[in-house]
Amino acid sequence: MKIDVLSLFPEMFDGVLHSSIMKKAQENEAVSFSVTDFRDFSGNKHHKVDDYPYGGGAGMVLKAEPLFAAVESLTIDESKKTRVILMCPQGERFTQQKAEELSAEEHLVFLCGHYEGYDERIREYLVTDELSLGDFVLTGGEIASMAIIDSVVRLLPNVLGNSDSPVHDSFSTGLLEHPQYTRPADFRGMKVPDILLSGDHGKIEKWRQEQSLKRTFERRKDLLDKAPLTEHQQKLLKSWNSKHKN
Amino acid sequence: MKIDVLSLFPEMFDGVLHSSIMKKAQENEAVSFSVTDFRDFSGNKHHKVDDYPYGGGAGMVLKAEPLFAAVESLTIDESKKTRVILMCPQGERFTQQKAEELSAEEHLVFLCGHYEGYDERIREYLVTDELSLGDFVLTGGEIASMAIIDSVVRLLPNVLGNSDSPVHDSFSTGLLEHPQYTRPADFRGMKVPDILLSGDHGKIEKWRQEQSLKRTFERRKDLLDKAPLTEHQQKLLKSWNSKHKN
Repeated sequence: MKIDVLSLFPEMFDGVLHSSIMKKAQENEAVSFSVTDFRDFSGNKHHKVDDYPYGGGAGMVLKAEPLFAAVESLTIDESKKTRVILMCPQGERFTQQKAEELSAEEHLVFLCGHYEGYDERIREYLVTDELSLGDFVLTGGEIASMAIIDSVVRLLPNVLGNSDSPVHDSFSTGLLEHPQYTRPADFRGMKVPDILLSGDHGKIEKWRQEQSLKRTFERRKDLLDKAPLTEHQQKLLKSWNSKHKN
Repeated sequence: MKIDVLSLFPEMFDGVLHSSIMKKAQENEAVSFSVTDFRDFSGNKHHKVDDYPYGGGAGMVLKAEPLFAAVESLTIDESKKTRVILMCPQGERFTQQKAEELSAEEHLVFLCGHYEGYDERIREYLVTDELSLGDFVLTGGEIASMAIIDSVVRLLPNVLGNSDSPVHDSFSTGLLEHPQYTRPADFRGMKVPDILLSGDHGKIEKWRQEQSLKRTFERRKDLLDKAPLTEHQQKLLKSWNSKHKN
């Protein structure tokens, strides 16, 4: 996979694209990254990339020209589908399903604005996807792009080892994960539940199913509708729901 | 505000904490950052910070001790409330409201795991908040922390200038923003709507209200229930809703 990032702050990406899984993914040739400063494509001698909004109002608007020119400067293989992704609060909410969809593509281009709005023609004629991480405001699209890049790249073949395989991810069962404990069994008087030290794998599995359901029930009821529940979990849920009604 | 980050990949933060608004916020003494590698607090000669889960199963679990010891090594003013924030998929969904809440605190500590689960005693006894960006899986808590730090720091006094004040943010009207355009009026045949060039501010304001409502209606109906609508918008919404029913 090839990933291009267009940003006014290319140095923001240095740390993230050269550490941990991203570093490994490049070494394994699963992905190649390129970060381009689109100020170089301003087309004017003052390197201006924004201007006042037509119709008045506060704030500045990113001009169409630098982003069109920067995208056109990229090597794009016309025989392969390229997704041009705009990070913005008006975009579709990014989810694990979208990460899986994007991980099947060959070329992703991320457009990162900073502080301000985008000229609408960028949305209409240049972009294939508008994405948002959620209902909060970031200074720019850079950190949001990093999040999406990380979640997509870790799904590519030959990136994660077996032990940290995406199969064991949160959300893979449709429920939140049960509590986990590791050594020591007693840390400053805070103890691991006896059942996990019992060696009884049947009981441990039941306890985990129960805890996973309980955490989801307490924190994310919205996930319960879609999650495939075990027989044990279905019984538990029924009894909790009837308790709640009384 | 003081922000401490505990991570196994401190170098990931270099780019983000020293660019743009974050750089300016430190120069203005609105915030000070410190990133600590909690591997230095492993308490064992192999610098091991994780171990196998009690009760068996795939994956590794972050040990309690390194994170407890690393948090205890921080300078914490007991007279001030310190929020210790764990980034995890089971956490509460981060929103702009939470950003505003956190921006009123004096000391934030972010715990960033990487690849794996946390020993439950970290959640129970060390942490004050568990936060998540959304329903997608990241390799670690680092990028999620950056997103939260950015959205919080930009709300601090003396960080943003007037022109990019948080008052003009997306979501500040409760609706998605209307389309914006800047020069040129004709870019390769793609034209700015005539109304924005008309100079008629009453009409422009009406058009913007309509476009803002339309975009929200098409993309984020869930926001319409809570948004305070103008009289013009209420009329429009009524007519669109009745059209939909017929």
